[in-house]
Amino acid sequence: MTLPAPLTGVIPPVCTPLTPDRQLDVPSLRRLVDHLTAAGVDALFVLGSTSEAAHLTDRQRRLVTETVVAHTAGRLPVLAGAIDMTTPRVLDHVETAAAAGAAAVVVTAPFYTRTHPAEIARHFRLIAARSPVPVLAYDIPAAVHTKLPARLVLELADEGALAGLKDSSGDLAGFREVVHGARSLPGFSALTGSELTVDAALALGAHGAVPGLANVDPDGYVRLTRLCRSGDLERARAEQERLCALFAMTTAPDPTRMGPTSAAIGAFKTALHLRGIITHPTTADPQIPLTPQETEAVAKHLAGAGLIP
Amino acid sequence: MTLPAPLTGVIPPVCTPLTPDRQLDVPSLRRLVDHLTAAGVDALFVLGSTSEAAHLTDRQRRLVTETVVAHTAGRLPVLAGAIDMTTPRVLDHVETAAAAGAAAVVVTAPFYTRTHPAEIARHFRLIAARSPVPVLAYDIPAAVHTKLPARLVLELADEGALAGLKDSSGDLAGFREVVHGARSLPGFSALTGSELTVDAALALGAHGAVPGLANVDPDGYVRLTRLCRSGDLERARAEQERLCALFAMTTAPDPTRMGPTSAAIGAFKTALHLRGIITHPTTADPQIPLTPQETEAVAKHLAGAGLIP
Amino acid sequence: MTLPAPLTGVIPPVCTPLTPDRQLDVPSLRRLVDHLTAAGVDALFVLGSTSEAAHLTDRQRRLVTETVVAHTAGRLPVLAGAIDMTTPRVLDHVETAAAAGAAAVVVTAPFYTRTHPAEIARHFRLIAARSPVPVLAYDIPAAVHTKLPARLVLELADEGALAGLKDSSGDLAGFREVVHGARSLPGFSALTGSELTVDAALALGAHGAVPGLANVDPDGYVRLTRLCRSGDLERARAEQERLCALFAMTTAPDPTRMGPTSAAIGAFKTALHLRGIITHPTTADPQIPLTPQETEAVAKHLAGAGLIP
Amino acid sequence: MTLPAPLTGVIPPVCTPLTPDRQLDVPSLRRLVDHLTAAGVDALFVLGSTSEAAHLTDRQRRLVTETVVAHTAGRLPVLAGAIDMTTPRVLDHVETAAAAGAAAVVVTAPFYTRTHPAEIARHFRLIAARSPVPVLAYDIPAAVHTKLPARLVLELADEGALAGLKDSSGDLAGFREVVHGARSLPGFSALTGSELTVDAALALGAHGAVPGLANVDPDGYVRLTRLCRSGDLERARAEQERLCALFAMTTAPDPTRMGPTSAAIGAFKTALHLRGIITHPTTADPQIPLTPQETEAVAKHLAGAGLIP
Repeated sequence: MTLPAPLTGVIPPVCTPLTPDRQLDVPSLRRLVDHLTAAGVDALFVLGSTSEAAHLTDRQRRLVTETVVAHTAGRLPVLAGAIDMTTPRVLDHVETAAAAGAAAVVVTAPFYTRTHPAEIARHFRLIAARSPVPVLAYDIPAAVHTKLPARLVLELADEGALAGLKDSSGDLAGFREVVHGARSLPGFSALTGSELTVDAALALGAHGAVPGLANVDPDGYVRLTRLCRSGDLERARAEQERLCALFAMTTAPDPTRMGPTSAAIGAFKTALHLRGIITHPTTADPQIPLTPQETEAVAKHLAGAGLIP
Repeated sequence: MTLPAPLTGVIPPVCTPLTPDRQLDVPSLRRLVDHLTAAGVDALFVLGSTSEAAHLTDRQRRLVTETVVAHTAGRLPVLAGAIDMTTPRVLDHVETAAAAGAAAVVVTAPFYTRTHPAEIARHFRLIAARSPVPVLAYDIPAAVHTKLPARLVLELADEGALAGLKDSSGDLAGFREVVHGARSLPGFSALTGSELTVDAALALGAHGAVPGLANVDPDGYVRLTRLCRSGDLERARAEQERLCALFAMTTAPDPTRMGPTSAAIGAFKTALHLRGIITHPTTADPQIPLTPQETEAVAKHLAGAGLIP
Repeated sequence: MTLPAPLTGVIPPVCTPLTPDRQLDVPSLRRLVDHLTAAGVDALFVLGSTSEAAHLTDRQRRLVTETVVAHTAGRLPVLAGAIDMTTPRVLDHVETAAAAGAAAVVVTAPFYTRTHPAEIARHFRLIAARSPVPVLAYDIPAAVHTKLPARLVLELADEGALAGLKDSSGDLAGFREVVHGARSLPGFSALTGSELTVDAALALGAHGAVPGLANVDPDGYVRLTRLCRSGDLERARAEQERLCALFAMTTAPDPTRMGPTSAAIGAFKTALHLRGIITHPTTADPQIPLTPQETEAVAKHLAGAGLIP
Repeated sequence: MTLPAPLTGVIPPVCTPLTPDRQLDVPSLRRLVDHLTAAGVDALFVLGSTSEAAHLTDRQRRLVTETVVAHTAGRLPVLAGAIDMTTPRVLDHVETAAAAGAAAVVVTAPFYTRTHPAEIARHFRLIAARSPVPVLAYDIPAAVHTKLPARLVLELADEGALAGLKDSSGDLAGFREVVHGARSLPGFSALTGSELTVDAALALGAHGAVPGLANVDPDGYVRLTRLCRSGDLERARAEQERLCALFAMTTAPDPTRMGPTSAAIGAFKTALHLRGIITHPTTADPQIPLTPQETEAVAKHLAGAGLIP
């Protein structure tokens, strides 16, 4: 299935359910896809940060893409992260993802190496030249430790090297510059990776959102984007604030026990488990699992939102 | 070949020669191994940062280890980096490296993810439990954006999870704490990754050095470590200062054109090419190649050191 | 004049005009105050980052506050930054500012020292206890290298230690948490320090804005806040985008010649000079002045916005 | 008293004793000066980071310099930190320090502002041009968030703008570049700010050391530098390792309760109090004081080193 241009609406970064011995839990993954699809999301993004792509082996990554592409069966476009340190390694993932049926790949700046902006530009150009599917840039400075400048994104978009941007930088002003500059580039997709400012991003012209919390409450984000689109900003803000309150589940784990990444992913998977969508809340190594008390705190957030009885 | 315990002396992080189309240049790699072996180094470290491990595909990584292990034919132990984001992905590289004959693996803290110290400890414990060969920790905050605390290294060493440390942090005080604490742990190898303070590291008790510049001038580092061992500190300092001057070749590339990683690796490969050891100075994508003027500046450093006519 | 609670609307961080020998240019400062007042701004903020507070001597700081308080003559409340490294030094500035007639002081977390969150909390509590005027927290991680957590701000607000927040962090999600939490704290002022996302901040409930660019185009920001208040979001967005385009004047200076702080302040002062409001575009030491070409580029931005012929 | 050129030996960064209500404790300060002088240190450095300069008001700063200059009465040169954000504010402190009799001033790069290297160079040049006494650069990236490049320090030294460097960066390789480059600049003082690698710094050619721990054990550092000078490296290393063990007192405070700065300063002052040299262990606001248990842990370190019974 080809990528809409631009891609709009809600594109959840799909969690990757695991068995207790950390194998891919394929039946749970299919149920999660059904849960998201039933809510009316517009596309699926596999192998992103929320998907624990950094923790999945190559074999698991391929199996995730194949499973989700097969299970959606053309009902929704599937974007796949191709997360690795540098160009040659990313290109291997791009090839696998495209072969597995991904409609597009999502690629970060190089990491581990200390890379000059000219080398970051070269990285995206080389990948775009060799990718059989469209390439979206993934701006996530908390993970890769460089920020993609708006000008570079627009320059690469103008050349046709980039089909879109997933902005997880938290820098709304920089994102706005891309959104504004991309108005003259029909087909370019400007997507926010935030859970907490989707209303603001759509108000300034973003096409869609890729919120990790949409795994837990896809209906909420679908409602939110529809309210924004219809101009009912009062109710959009109320829906966004409800989702902000729900997102506080990511503070349930004790920050002296684990990092913020595992806290967020652990909370999402625990919530999906409590909602009966995935069989195990297991997160990938070396992340620390939630305690029973932390699980209870997540449950309270879900109950408060009416998502569990 | 098993790993000496402790490992001492000079252990060059072996550059990875490439052809102009970025395939592994196996004959050049063998010549580089011969060049290092002839100088009397004590072991070889493949797939480290200087080896462009971050840029090599899994296929290339395996071929590098296999080539170097086969070519050394038991004359020297070969350590292999297993550089990847998190535990499951690292374990795949560990398995490959051990199967290819590596005597030990060298493993960083997780990166890309934001990982809590307790999760870093868990990472090393899980890898040590499953690795068929000894595990050395690789402390390289410039790449992974966390610093391994000395106490954690010593705790893991005491448990038997770590056989050594390669310290590329530049923090000599922290390294000293490990060196001092490891005195009661016979067999633990404390190795500095610095090019510029090898004399200081050995003086405070380090066992060996893993300097990238030893690709270019292995004789210099072998001399330096022997002078340190024999207590001839005056001449050791002079040799170290000569090597510091040679290291200035890494400032030959224009820092407004490329990052510090590509400048250093580009200079080393250019020097190996100019010395006739490898056939091409090619670096991996997306690094920017040196210009003819930058190459000329590297040549001047080599000529000044008497390494080329 | 007492501080409105909450403070709303446009509160420009007033530039500090200097003579060519870097003395305070009092007549220019008075003209700048008139220019801002005539545009209908709601308050003035002196001695903030845009005011070059970090560069002004204590004598100059006092003279700035006295001049602006005297010249506004009660027409507008004057807030004063009390920017220094730690509690005792900040308290000296608080005393001076209050004596000079400031209606409130604006205080950052400690800097230079590496300060624990519990010490940051203690800092604000001690200052609030001794300040004769209300205290607003100034969240500016780019300068002080710590981020004020939303929970801490709300806790201090709830205790009565903080009367408001000026958020220059660029983190709209964190700011939203403060805005939302402060709804139950009548009188608390949540102000954004952004030039580029004022519409978004007001839409989610911020009370006002402190944009450096309001020195150059106060009418634009007054229009923007009024359009937001009246719910005319289409025109508000257009006005905000116009101001974003004008803000691009801060990219006129060559980033290889000077830092981003001096580029922005240099551009603002150059624009005020070109508009005839201040007599000299001089910035404080050690900032690099703009070249004639860079000045010309700023002029083009002004002309494009119709602010000069 | 004029500054020796170069300045050699041990130059303690003198702690600033406070009364329980945070006034300068002049009698304790005099006793501390006597304690250091009696141990045979070579100069005194007041108003550095260990002196809590960031916490002292201008009045207190002046009183410290006047007290120490008067009390040393020409027996030792007194260097004074002139720690502030930018050039004009630093110049005010330089004037005060020189008037109070300081033999030299010690100046960091600008902080709070984001300053370009060209502006940092301009900062030092302007200060040197206007300072009545020699200027030493203070490289302390943990506080000011920029690193002084070795090349810049050498360039400024060569111009005569800098009389020396106090290196608290922890980057021994960069410090070595300055030490080596400064050999052709007679009179330039290269001083390490480390407690833990003084032996290594002296071995590579540093002139002296400015270790905060020398407040607590000046005799140890005096012995260490003499052993280094006489070439007795075995015993020098043993003395350094003893001091490293003593430095572990800075880990006595609970790191979840306070930052690393207050932990170190709190431990030093507590040790001076326990040794009977200063009357109160009080630290400046907003630092958190040590608990009785933390004080007990410091006492154990002192007893272990034979510094208290």
